[in-house]
Amino acid sequence: MILTVTLNPAIDVTYRLPRLTVGEVHRVAEVTTRLGGKGVNVARVLHQLGEPTHAIGLADARFAEALTAELPSTFLPELEDVRRALVVVAESTTSLWEPGRQAAPGADQRLLDLVEARLAAATAVTVSGSLAPGVPVDLPVRIARLAAAAGVPVLLDLDDAALAAAVGTGAVLTPNEDEIARLLGRAPDDLVAAVAELAERHGGPVVLTRGRLGLVACADGACWEVNPPAGISGNPTGAGDAAAAGLARGLAHGRPWPEILRDAAALGAAAVVAPIAGEIDAATYASVLADIKVGRVDKEA
Amino acid sequence: MILTVTLNPAIDVTYRLPRLTVGEVHRVAEVTTRLGGKGVNVARVLHQLGEPTHAIGLADARFAEALTAELPSTFLPELEDVRRALVVVAESTTSLWEPGRQAAPGADQRLLDLVEARLAAATAVTVSGSLAPGVPVDLPVRIARLAAAAGVPVLLDLDDAALAAAVGTGAVLTPNEDEIARLLGRAPDDLVAAVAELAERHGGPVVLTRGRLGLVACADGACWEVNPPAGISGNPTGAGDAAAAGLARGLAHGRPWPEILRDAAALGAAAVVAPIAGEIDAATYASVLADIKVGRVDKEA
Repeated sequence: MILTVTLNPAIDVTYRLPRLTVGEVHRVAEVTTRLGGKGVNVARVLHQLGEPTHAIGLADARFAEALTAELPSTFLPELEDVRRALVVVAESTTSLWEPGRQAAPGADQRLLDLVEARLAAATAVTVSGSLAPGVPVDLPVRIARLAAAAGVPVLLDLDDAALAAAVGTGAVLTPNEDEIARLLGRAPDDLVAAVAELAERHGGPVVLTRGRLGLVACADGACWEVNPPAGISGNPTGAGDAAAAGLARGLAHGRPWPEILRDAAALGAAAVVAPIAGEIDAATYASVLADIKVGRVDKEA
Repeated sequence: MILTVTLNPAIDVTYRLPRLTVGEVHRVAEVTTRLGGKGVNVARVLHQLGEPTHAIGLADARFAEALTAELPSTFLPELEDVRRALVVVAESTTSLWEPGRQAAPGADQRLLDLVEARLAAATAVTVSGSLAPGVPVDLPVRIARLAAAAGVPVLLDLDDAALAAAVGTGAVLTPNEDEIARLLGRAPDDLVAAVAELAERHGGPVVLTRGRLGLVACADGACWEVNPPAGISGNPTGAGDAAAAGLARGLAHGRPWPEILRDAAALGAAAVVAPIAGEIDAATYASVLADIKVGRVDKEA
């Protein structure tokens, strides 16, 4: 069972309107609501693939209860409320993201206890997304250490300070280009060299996710470039979470890195085609898998 | 105790941003949330005035529980969720109003049972605002009949079909100009004549609320014009609910109409000065009360 951890979930709300006009009153006829957050999306993709998964994290009681009706999950009621991520779809798409809500004191220790209780049955652990206010920045690192001590592979899909804190843990890291630039203190000219440098400093695998441009990964002293399939278009939201689901599944099954990376890229493409974050288009997944090229590349000095 | 009934409550959410740009992503730093709905606002004003009140209505369990911490209230958990009324305050104010959520089958009868149980202690009843989907359009009328049978005065602050259904009940009605025009089938040239005509057809008091322009009321065969105080500016949202609170309080205490109308207009003005709907500025209320002129006017044929 793959354990996905979400430390700052969101309720994804979509309003559909003919037109959004600043300064006006709009009666919204169509509201759709979905329980979200990056780790929840990872678990949704795994669940859709038939891979045993369990989503855990911090939320409020209502979110926790509603999610169990959709997915195997255990969210601790540690937040006073769950933030909303509002997307207003009209002539164009306007987004309004609420800040995360404060976590209760001691939420970090209770979450660690929950991870520990679930680790015996876990084949991999992912920690995805931002941290709710009040969550210590090193909580993902402490989760990674618990998992490593139990011999369970870990993927940390973090940003900002939490990502910086995770360098050196040896867990799989999945930064984007901006995040690598911040970590190295410079915009990289050569992406492969940059990923290799970070992987060496980190002492573990680094998978750079480049959206429509594919993946660059370095692990176990080797690096690969993964070209994405051509002709994919759609909604890129959630593509990174689908790729993370592929990485976690490959790690859980101990597959070789080129195969893991091909699968992750195919799942990312299949998520772009699906209309909603947290879903993949199964036909796209099946059809693109064979087309994806994973090339071994030399790292430059 | 004044019983206020809210059949389609809302959670009033305010986002404050430096700028709202269509097509862009915004991280909202400041979110304020308030349990609302017109009848809830009426109860808040009465509560602030020290007038015993109890707010009832339809909501979900979370809304019901949270409101009891703020106000004496009993909301039945009959809605699947409570709609949000979002106001984005930036260079200008943009509103996005979600539709009301479906009421459970039988919610109307359970609400009537609750009204009946509370009527013995009630000195007046108000029913304010729209109806959640699934609520029969005649529910306010049935509430008014129960109250009338118990000898308790009723104010119905309704719109559209529910207002049309309430004509003839003899309850106090509080339409605005547009609503009177729809009910009479014509835009009125002479407001006093129009209010008098509606009051006669209705067989009960009609109080036309004109926002910053004051009130026109006909009751018991007489009509009055109420001029608002000069120099009031601020947030008109909730002014109608504060005026309704004043009308309900006057009815509960059996005061004469001119006094009731003066109080209602003063409370409406005091609500405009207060920053939040459901609150009044006590100093404004005290200072404007004496300035408000209530003039008896002849109704024209």
